[in-house]
Amino acid sequence: MPEFSFRVTAREGLSRRGELHTPHGTVQTPAFMPVGTRGAVKAVTGQQLRDTGAEIILGNTYHLYLKPGDSLIARCGGLHRFIGWDGPILTDSGGYQIFSLAAMRRIREDGAEFRSHLDGSLHHLTPERATEIQAQLGSDVAMVLDECIATPAPAPAAREAMERSVRWARRARDRFLQLRDSPAPIAVTNPGQAQFGIVQGATHLDLRTESVQATVDIGFEAYAIGGLSVVESPDVMYEVVGHTAPRLPDDRPRYLMGSGMPDDLIESVARGVDLFDCVLPTRNARNGQLFTREGPLSIKNARFAEDMSPPDPQCGCYTCARFSRAYLRHLFLAGEMTGATLNTVHNLYFYLDTMRRIREAILFGTFGKLRQEFHQTYSRRPHH
Amino acid sequence: MPEFSFRVTAREGLSRRGELHTPHGTVQTPAFMPVGTRGAVKAVTGQQLRDTGAEIILGNTYHLYLKPGDSLIARCGGLHRFIGWDGPILTDSGGYQIFSLAAMRRIREDGAEFRSHLDGSLHHLTPERATEIQAQLGSDVAMVLDECIATPAPAPAAREAMERSVRWARRARDRFLQLRDSPAPIAVTNPGQAQFGIVQGATHLDLRTESVQATVDIGFEAYAIGGLSVVESPDVMYEVVGHTAPRLPDDRPRYLMGSGMPDDLIESVARGVDLFDCVLPTRNARNGQLFTREGPLSIKNARFAEDMSPPDPQCGCYTCARFSRAYLRHLFLAGEMTGATLNTVHNLYFYLDTMRRIREAILFGTFGKLRQEFHQTYSRRPHH
Repeated sequence: MPEFSFRVTAREGLSRRGELHTPHGTVQTPAFMPVGTRGAVKAVTGQQLRDTGAEIILGNTYHLYLKPGDSLIARCGGLHRFIGWDGPILTDSGGYQIFSLAAMRRIREDGAEFRSHLDGSLHHLTPERATEIQAQLGSDVAMVLDECIATPAPAPAAREAMERSVRWARRARDRFLQLRDSPAPIAVTNPGQAQFGIVQGATHLDLRTESVQATVDIGFEAYAIGGLSVVESPDVMYEVVGHTAPRLPDDRPRYLMGSGMPDDLIESVARGVDLFDCVLPTRNARNGQLFTREGPLSIKNARFAEDMSPPDPQCGCYTCARFSRAYLRHLFLAGEMTGATLNTVHNLYFYLDTMRRIREAILFGTFGKLRQEFHQTYSRRPHH
Repeated sequence: MPEFSFRVTAREGLSRRGELHTPHGTVQTPAFMPVGTRGAVKAVTGQQLRDTGAEIILGNTYHLYLKPGDSLIARCGGLHRFIGWDGPILTDSGGYQIFSLAAMRRIREDGAEFRSHLDGSLHHLTPERATEIQAQLGSDVAMVLDECIATPAPAPAAREAMERSVRWARRARDRFLQLRDSPAPIAVTNPGQAQFGIVQGATHLDLRTESVQATVDIGFEAYAIGGLSVVESPDVMYEVVGHTAPRLPDDRPRYLMGSGMPDDLIESVARGVDLFDCVLPTRNARNGQLFTREGPLSIKNARFAEDMSPPDPQCGCYTCARFSRAYLRHLFLAGEMTGATLNTVHNLYFYLDTMRRIREAILFGTFGKLRQEFHQTYSRRPHH
């Protein structure tokens, strides 16, 4: 595993400033990964993505497997070449989308049977197959297939899913290691790919502890905390993250999957998390919600009709440097794609700039202060 | 009129290489103006637009008048400030959209009565009002309101519309000159605005001659050839352009409205035209049609599924430098906005690069050769 490594360069309390090395370059952590579901971060180009400060993006295995297919992408040289992004890419396993998107799903010990939300076609995804698909995609980080369940989940159901996820993780790891030695007939397009295990257990702390131990016993390059993007209350999420993250190996990056709001990033970093992904900045941008240092802002609001100030006067992004709330409101109401692009550029910049400020603060030992200030100025509810 | 001027710097046959000076900068001619209907060129940002080589854009008065309204835009400082584009802008008069888009229209001597395609509301646009709206928008070039008719049009109908357009042009010019001296209550947001007259007469050459004389008699900063974007046959269009353009004042720019295909640009430059606008590069991009030196290409074609070559190997645009036909096909089929953006960047670059090559050729006296080569390699019909 010479090409994948992680190094903590500074600490403040439980928070860590680090560097994650991958076959496609280095990621400064704590890091946020914009979501590029189908091989593109919606409404922006790779250039615009770079300009917002993105260093690593996430691709969804479920979507790419269904269309255009992992074999086609492999024949085109792998996901990096296919989508023209030469930086690091992490792919999820498809487990969450089967849970949240598929037209039908049936979980058995062998794997997940589901029907495509696109055409109703029947598919069978096993831990081994999810590993093979990601080997063909050639992401820098592959995730194991896990079983996602709705929350709140009673302890017996949460235990069952957690234990199955551990069994699946072992099978996924076995297949991953086999592919290193004898990849055929799978086209492994990124020999330096790493594989992350996923801790489950819903909101039950004892299950989380068990899951950490069992998953770390299998042994992965790093570990993720799953099953929390579906938790409604931030307090419950913070409790589970605060319980789980410090129990994960200190010398490996920790990835909180699918969360969250800007304050979730701060609070999870404070609990020792290094990696994040979330659709919020991009999805909300397309719905006309812009993040600012004071909180989210709904651009369609009539009070912005002639407001010539930028979305966030403190922001350094292209959108805030050139365009007004009045113009963005007009574009949103007119349904112009350019509005979705400009909003996305702003929201991603806001998220990635927040991560940059977090990293700098940890380095200078001022993260506690930043965290305090953030909560004093930022309101989760729209302030306009 | 110190801020608006035009200078021919080189000639080859009837074709002209020139410079158009406006209050918001200089435009190298022959020039193509991307269409930014509602204050944005669809699917791209101003930065991407600049990167394709665009120097001047077109805004549609009909759309901007209806939403967000010219008064709102004037209160926001004019169209340039509102949309964050500090280069030259030309606005049309709304006449063509009333003809092609409005839910209902009734042409009377006073002006055009129409119902909005957005909400069915009733509006009355006179030559004076169209002039006032554009004064509030503050474009660098305003167009007179003209009467657009379907073609082929019998001579009597074409004469009637042409003669009315001349009477409207005189009224528009009178109002334009009045606004210079006493603008109130209109907010004139660009005191250096120029106004172009429009030659009509459908495909009847004698009517075109009459229209040229009458319109030039009124006296505008420059002149446009209208009513040809609705002509089906390129040969008929070339005949009318070839008849009309050389009859227009030699020291003023000549603008062919709403046309056309890449070969139309070449053929019209050869007949003395200096300015163009057309929705084809942007609209066709969103429909998956990419222009190349060999002709248009339909990106959804199955043969491109694993084609890792760029849309046009000879093209220097961002899209061709970074992305493949296979990826663009995937984005198109997946309905990803990023696909529309990348296609638009390419098509605009193709159009603007074609204009750049035309300008260079006229300067070096090789335009005739370029024209010949273009027709030898470019096919109007999709070659894939």
